[in-house]
Amino acid sequence: MSAPRHRPVAVLGLGAMGRALAGALLAAGHPTTVWNRSPERSAALAGAGADVAGSAAEAVAAGELVVVCLLDDDVTRRVLERAAPALAGRTVVNLTNGTPAQAHRLAEWVTARGARYVDGGIMAVPFMIGQPGAFVLYSGAEDAFLDWRDTLEAFGDVHWLGADPGRAAVHDLALLAAMYGMFGGFLHATAMVRAAGTPVGRFAPMVTGWLTAMLGELPAMAAAVDSGEHDADGSSLRMQAASFGNLLAACRDLGVDAGLMRPVRDLLDEAVARGHGEEGLSALVGLLHDDVGRPA
Amino acid sequence: MSAPRHRPVAVLGLGAMGRALAGALLAAGHPTTVWNRSPERSAALAGAGADVAGSAAEAVAAGELVVVCLLDDDVTRRVLERAAPALAGRTVVNLTNGTPAQAHRLAEWVTARGARYVDGGIMAVPFMIGQPGAFVLYSGAEDAFLDWRDTLEAFGDVHWLGADPGRAAVHDLALLAAMYGMFGGFLHATAMVRAAGTPVGRFAPMVTGWLTAMLGELPAMAAAVDSGEHDADGSSLRMQAASFGNLLAACRDLGVDAGLMRPVRDLLDEAVARGHGEEGLSALVGLLHDDVGRPA
Ligand SMILES: NC(=O)c1ccc[n+]([C@@H]2O[C@H](COP(=O)([O-])OP(=O)(O)OC[C@H]3O[C@@H](n4cnc5c(N)ncnc54)[C@H](OP(=O)(O)O)[C@@H]3O)[C@@H](O)[C@H]2O)c1
Ligand SMILES: NC(=O)c1ccc[n+]([C@@H]2O[C@H](COP(=O)([O-])OP(=O)(O)OC[C@H]3O[C@@H](n4cnc5c(N)ncnc54)[C@H](OP(=O)(O)O)[C@@H]3O)[C@@H](O)[C@H]2O)c1
Repeated sequence: MSAPRHRPVAVLGLGAMGRALAGALLAAGHPTTVWNRSPERSAALAGAGADVAGSAAEAVAAGELVVVCLLDDDVTRRVLERAAPALAGRTVVNLTNGTPAQAHRLAEWVTARGARYVDGGIMAVPFMIGQPGAFVLYSGAEDAFLDWRDTLEAFGDVHWLGADPGRAAVHDLALLAAMYGMFGGFLHATAMVRAAGTPVGRFAPMVTGWLTAMLGELPAMAAAVDSGEHDADGSSLRMQAASFGNLLAACRDLGVDAGLMRPVRDLLDEAVARGHGEEGLSALVGLLHDDVGRPA
Repeated sequence: MSAPRHRPVAVLGLGAMGRALAGALLAAGHPTTVWNRSPERSAALAGAGADVAGSAAEAVAAGELVVVCLLDDDVTRRVLERAAPALAGRTVVNLTNGTPAQAHRLAEWVTARGARYVDGGIMAVPFMIGQPGAFVLYSGAEDAFLDWRDTLEAFGDVHWLGADPGRAAVHDLALLAAMYGMFGGFLHATAMVRAAGTPVGRFAPMVTGWLTAMLGELPAMAAAVDSGEHDADGSSLRMQAASFGNLLAACRDLGVDAGLMRPVRDLLDEAVARGHGEEGLSALVGLLHDDVGRPA
């Protein structure tokens, strides 16, 4: 089932990410046609061997695989509509960030035009594309995915999530949520340390070491969510709610906006008020989604 | 300056953390006297060789080093007040979570009673105490810290932060903020994946790998905060604000409460509105604390 190499591919969208994707395809030796609304962005890629199409339809006509990486679903839809007559027989791999519902709608629309649709979520920043650590989530038309899997490996490790075209988006957005939580917490921590007069550069290794250690807690928290047994394991929500008050008081004293932290405090307080004070942090999931592991 | 081993130590407070601390001191061979409001919590430690004091004052009289690990500053203050007459000549190492202001007040109060004060922040959960990865932040009376440093190493790696007794608390609370950001993001992600019908246990390795990769961004973000140059490096706030809308829309569709994520969206939107759309995430710190690296 694996794809013969070097079939022609197209990339629609040459923003920061689209350029990285096209660059990785060229580096892997694929004949690559690129298109972007603002044509000046294709210059470096042309120098690296890309064919530059004058329209999205022209690019789609040139590529058996059409990789899409545009700003959002609206733009993607409008660009593909203009290329619709050329879509039949193509495989569209849409790496534009979107919702599960958008993936479902676009899958239906693309399929109705005689093309196969795979949705994807890129778990990397542009400079990581094709480097260790980068991975891309895929779901949708499995035959198309298997057909192009070798080509898609140019971007990073591939994670196949099944035939539901919305599944990649769910996981993508969930991972982004986890990332924004971590980055938000880091930025808040950074603001505190800076407000107290310490250079942040010296704090960074400390916080990296600490978060690395705390990452080790995630499998146990995940298991607790699946089982619904939220053992405190030495860190009760009651104790955590008490020390959270200190965090907010210190932010007040330091003049740091605690807006990123207050919802965590509210959740802790709510959990304690609902009688989960002797349970662990994983019990909070039950307050975020009703059907999930809520303790009786 | 390093301490001779085996001078007598005391631990006030035998909650989940105090028991772990006392256990580590006993395991390292220190003559250890323990006290707790609810006496039944000392049973296992007594079996491991601890002396059990009938009052906090009795424990303080028995230990040249007094390690305090109680629920909060209020409790700590009340317990130490009852033991005040025995404090002269002691070193108090307070590992109760608290604010910088509380550390300053307690340092003054303890010092006025003829004892030396070191404030500390434990960066570990109880079962990690004495294990690789655990570390404790200290600041306050440096001579006392150096005098007892070897003993304190029983808990985990020691990080000395200087003579300001409030500095350990700032860093402790900042690291907790980073941790709660990460855990909050993870729990939100978990709720999404669960709501979409996927077991969280299978998602955990994916999110761990992803957050590990993203941890690699922190040093660059810290450097950007210190320099005030918030390069987008391929991920502009404008693009991130657009995909954040997808995250919130997906949560709505999945029935997941987005309360932990909305403040991140608000910050992104505010940053874009203020003209930072082409900068990177580190620019958000300027919105959390006025004097920090805000771009011109
Ligand atoms: N950058 C990252 O770190 C990253 C990571 C993972 C996923 N992603 C996702 O990848 C996608 C692209 O991100 P990016 O960083 O490349 O964004 P970007 O640099 O802002 O690029 C946006 C792309 O969309 C095009 N576009 C915008 N409005 C358009 C319109 N009305 N008509 C036609 N084309 C239009 C732009 O064309 P012009 O050049 O003409 O403006 C450009 O090609 C997004 O969905 C993003 O969420 C990005
Ligand atoms: N557990 C962790 O993961 C962790 C991590 C880092 C830092 N810490 C910090 O360590 C400290 C202790 O945490 P913990 O987990 O051990 O909490 P805990 O299990 O709830 O223990 C609380 C301790 O405070 C005592 N206490 C509460 N109210 C009291 C009162 N009115 N008078 C006298 N004693 C009172 C309790 O005595 P009784 O037994 O009589 O109730 C117990 O010794 C907190 O400041 C916490 O933030 C904990």
